[in-house]
Amino acid sequence: MSEQTITVTGMSCQHCVNAVTEEVTEIPGVTGVEVNLETGAVTVTSEAPVADSALAAAIDEAGYSIKG
Amino acid sequence: MSEQTITVTGMSCQHCVNAVTEEVTEIPGVTGVEVNLETGAVTVTSEAPVADSALAAAIDEAGYSIKG
Repeated sequence: MSEQTITVTGMSCQHCVNAVTEEVTEIPGVTGVEVNLETGAVTVTSEAPVADSALAAAIDEAGYSIKG
Repeated sequence: MSEQTITVTGMSCQHCVNAVTEEVTEIPGVTGVEVNLETGAVTVTSEAPVADSALAAAIDEAGYSIKG
């Protein structure tokens, strides 16, 4: 199992959290997504590490950006 | 035709606008809904005036409140 945490900017409400959660959940191999609206922390658990590019694409698809 | 404008508090992003628009659109007789995210103004056009209670219920269902 793998766990990665990224920080997502621009999420302002629970709908934003849902949008990010849905997109990241669709990445193959992802088994869990936890989003902290206040800090922007998105913790992804997966069978194997997820490529940064796949995470970035999912966050972009949801309409947000990864910080840094 | 009737037009009513209410002010809704708590909308923070486009997802919120969509949630409010969807719920108000479902009120029978409503033909159009325009939401201004910045001001919270929600303008409802309808065949006949919509009861305040129906508007309040729709906004509540979306997860928001009418101001005042």
